[in-house]
Order: sequence, then structure tokens, then C-alpha cells
Amino acid sequence: MGKVYGGIEAGGTKFVCAAGSGPTELRTEARIETTTPEETIGRVIAFFRGLPEPVAAIGIGSFGPIDPDPSSVTYGLITNAPKPDWQNIDLAGAVREALRVPVGFDTDVNAAALGEHRWGAAGRLDTFIYMTVGTGIGGGGIAGGRPMRGLLHPEMGHVRIPHDLTTDPFPGICPWHGDCLEGLAAGSALEARWGKPSETMPADHPAWSLEAWYLALGITNFILTLSPQRVIVGGGVMALPGLLAKVRREVARLLNGYVNAPEITRDIDSYIVPPALGNRAGVLGAIVLAEHAEG
Amino acid sequence: MGKVYGGIEAGGTKFVCAAGSGPTELRTEARIETTTPEETIGRVIAFFRGLPEPVAAIGIGSFGPIDPDPSSVTYGLITNAPKPDWQNIDLAGAVREALRVPVGFDTDVNAAALGEHRWGAAGRLDTFIYMTVGTGIGGGGIAGGRPMRGLLHPEMGHVRIPHDLTTDPFPGICPWHGDCLEGLAAGSALEARWGKPSETMPADHPAWSLEAWYLALGITNFILTLSPQRVIVGGGVMALPGLLAKVRREVARLLNGYVNAPEITRDIDSYIVPPALGNRAGVLGAIVLAEHAEG
Repeated sequence: MGKVYGGIEAGGTKFVCAAGSGPTELRTEARIETTTPEETIGRVIAFFRGLPEPVAAIGIGSFGPIDPDPSSVTYGLITNAPKPDWQNIDLAGAVREALRVPVGFDTDVNAAALGEHRWGAAGRLDTFIYMTVGTGIGGGGIAGGRPMRGLLHPEMGHVRIPHDLTTDPFPGICPWHGDCLEGLAAGSALEARWGKPSETMPADHPAWSLEAWYLALGITNFILTLSPQRVIVGGGVMALPGLLAKVRREVARLLNGYVNAPEITRDIDSYIVPPALGNRAGVLGAIVLAEHAEG
Repeated sequence: MGKVYGGIEAGGTKFVCAAGSGPTELRTEARIETTTPEETIGRVIAFFRGLPEPVAAIGIGSFGPIDPDPSSVTYGLITNAPKPDWQNIDLAGAVREALRVPVGFDTDVNAAALGEHRWGAAGRLDTFIYMTVGTGIGGGGIAGGRPMRGLLHPEMGHVRIPHDLTTDPFPGICPWHGDCLEGLAAGSALEARWGKPSETMPADHPAWSLEAWYLALGITNFILTLSPQRVIVGGGVMALPGLLAKVRREVARLLNGYVNAPEITRDIDSYIVPPALGNRAGVLGAIVLAEHAEG
């Protein structure tokens, strides 16, 4: 059975908590609505305190921006989050103090990448991207065998992409950048543009061709910048049947044979893939972070 | 004194060869015009054979695309290069066979990054980008302490960036992508657009504001994708006085405070920098590759 670890996927709308040691050994799970930091973190701590068996360590994959650098004085904090209540909140510190266990901390997308690396769609790869298209757009991954980190952490949702205002006058909704990738193609942008939630739009709605085009522009740039061995694309918006297939076609068209690898030119269906762990990638990756934190 | 290593910076217009052990210990250098593979590689081999003392290993930083994966059957080759003569040329193999020494092989930009890491502008950093803006545009670097590599290697010059055709109708010159970053902003694109070589255009020519804008769009996306601790920008086009300062201003404007790190918000002059080794970064980095090849 092995040790039991705790995983927290900290999101802007909900926190998912779990205890276990892998996909087939997740013993307990809880979904906690994201309200104020005090209330939300309090309920997270209560969940772990209420377990029949204490966890050996806890991993947190968090929405951000965060500070994931263990040598920094602001390590473990959610820093300049879009939610005002959640700015400069010491999430990792609060959990560590209350539960007295080692705590690992990284972005939600890096955690999901770790989960897919261990149990999912990125086994044996040492350079790949995990991207999520939900209310917002985030990206992270593993480069040269290590979770992507540097000055801070990747913010792939905020890259600028070509935006032809003559065919698409929508100005984008990003408060910082207007029509960056997230500003044009996140779920919240789809809703703002078309006046209804994306999950209510049928597969033949014109929204989806434009959405596939914008996502493909982002993914093409990530491929050219990092040369990943695979690209995993998850998130609620990707649930639309046929969307991922459209994205693959547009990426192939944009690359135009330049990246001359059979993985792309002959088998792009195995190169750009959904997460094998589905929406549990994040919380399972948080359990991997917990293992690493224990050392 | 230490061992003597050989370095080769293999470019589309010239090959620079050197023997030594570092910036202050470069004993011999040669510049060899890039003609046919047979002639050029023959002259490179003759240079090393003519040295008074044999080198312990040779490193090659090459134009590309190349195959830098030692486990691949096409390792060491220049693959689908834009120069037809140079497609599928086993550059590393030819040097190894002729000189019977270990040979290290990577992209020209990854080699330059290694040189800057050892002796130049990226000491102690483990995640940074090296970008060159010359006849073409290339980018590489080090991520998590290792030269960037994955499916193949980064091709940062070919990312798509916003291009407003109403203010700039130039279609770009990239044979694969038209108006990608290289197609709009490489030296050859500047020359095609303005009808004269970029080095003949004065600092107040309108070319330069547009150039800074395009380069900043590319660099901004690289920062958001990889979160580098520094960005080094070299290459002949960057020799124009004031261009790098313009690029820094545009990057700061595009990021708009979102990447909330003092390195960017307070001291961008130390964050986006020229190579400390100037145009010797590539050949010096090739010497680092040689050291690694010897193990």
C-alpha cells in the first residue's frame, strides 16, 4: 500500500483535496468551494485533520501567479492573483503550520504535468507541455526532466498571438493584455464574446473554428519555443467533441512541415493529446509534489 | 594551462574554428567561408590537423535544423537546412571520423548559451534564453540547468507574432511561414522590406521602431512561455545603437506589470542584455560542448 500523501488542487472556483498514493489508491476526496482564503484554507485543513490516518506530506498545485522558489522569502504564496482577496496569501505556509508535515508547492499546471508524467500521457518523456483551457488558460510542464520554473513560472496563457481585427473585432478580455491568448480564447472570453457559456454552444457554432485557430497559434508557438516531446491539452473548454482534432489540424497547417519530426508530420494525434488522468491530473500531480517534498 | 579543446561555430555564411580552453586561452582561430559541405568541412579538418598540438575533443555549434539527440540514428546531421547543399549532411560524424576525437554537437544558439553561462552574461543562472538576430533569427538556451532540447530543438525564430497589415503590409519572407518573427524581423527581412542592408540604415530610420516592436513581441512570448531568469540578445542586427534599449521598453510595455518580478519591473536593463562574449559566444560555447563530449 505504501504511504498516504495529501494532494490539493487549489483553483479559483474550487479546491480539490485528496489523500492516497496514486490513481488507484485515492482513498478520500473533497471539493471545497473557493471563498475567502480564511474559510477555504480552514476547510482544507479540517479535511486533512479529519482523515483516519495522517498524511506523510502534502503537495499543492495552485492557481497563481505564485512564488514556487523555495529559496525566496515569498515562497509558498499566491502573489498577484486576479482575485483581490487572494493576493499575497501564504497558502503553503498555512497548510504546513497547521498540519506539521512537509509541503510541496507548484503551479496547478506543473502539478498536472507531474501527474501525467507519473501515471498518464507523458510517461518516460522529459520535455513536454501541459496546457489547460478553462475559465482561464495556463501552461506549464517539464523541461529537461524538471518542472518548468525560472524567474517565476511560465504564464503561457498570456502570450500574444496574431489577431485579425478585420475578421474578429472582439478586443479580448484580459485586464493586463486585452487580446492575449487567454483574453481571446479562455472560457470566460468565449462567454463574453458570444453572450453565453461555451458549454451551451453546439459543435457547429462558429465559435469553435475560431477557438481552434487561436489555440493552435498558441500551441504552435510553444512547440517552436520549447520543442516539447508531447503537448497535453486539458481543461473544461476542451470537452467539446471535435475541438482537439480541429486544433491538431491547425497546428499542422501552421508548422507547415518545418519541424520535420514524424511525431508531428505523421502522427500528430499522438503528439497533441488530452490528459490521460482527465480532470484528476492536478490533484494526482499534487500527490507527486507531496512525495518530492518528503524527499 | 589545462587541455586544449576545439570549437566550431558552423554558420550559413562562415565557419569559425578555434582551439583553446576559454576566452583568455584561445590560441588559434580561423574563419572559413561556407561553400559546399565537402570543401568547407575539408578546410575545417585541415585547420585542426594543422595545429601544433592535437585537441582533446571538439564541440560544434551548428546552424540547422540539426539532430542533437545522441540516441538518434541521424544524430550529428544538419537535416532540413534552408541551403539545399547542406541538407542531411553528417557534420559531426565527418569531423569525428577524420580527427578521431570525441565530438559534441548542438545548435549554434545553445552553444552560445553555454559560452555565456560559463564565461559571460548568464553565470550561475539555470534557466535563460540566448537569441540571435542576424541574417536569420534563432533562439535556444538553458532550462533547468540543461541545454534546451526536446522533440528536436527550439526554433524560436519561427513563432507567429501579431502583425498589423493595415500599418505594415510587408508579407514577410519566411519560405515556410511568411510573416513569422524571422520572416518579419531578421536581417534578410529588413533588407527585403527597405531595399537596402540593415547596417546602412541610420538610427532614426523608421525601420528600427518597427524592428524593436517585432523583436519585443517575440521576446515577451518567450518570457511568458519559459520564465527565463535572463534574456541575452546577440547577432549583427542588434549592433544598431539604441535598438536593444527600444526592445526593452517595448517588452516592459507588453508585459504591463503582469510578470511581477523586480528583475523586469525595476531593472530590465540587467534582464535583457547583450552577450558578454560578443560574437565569440558561439565558438567559446563550442569549446564547452567539447569539454562535455570528452566527459
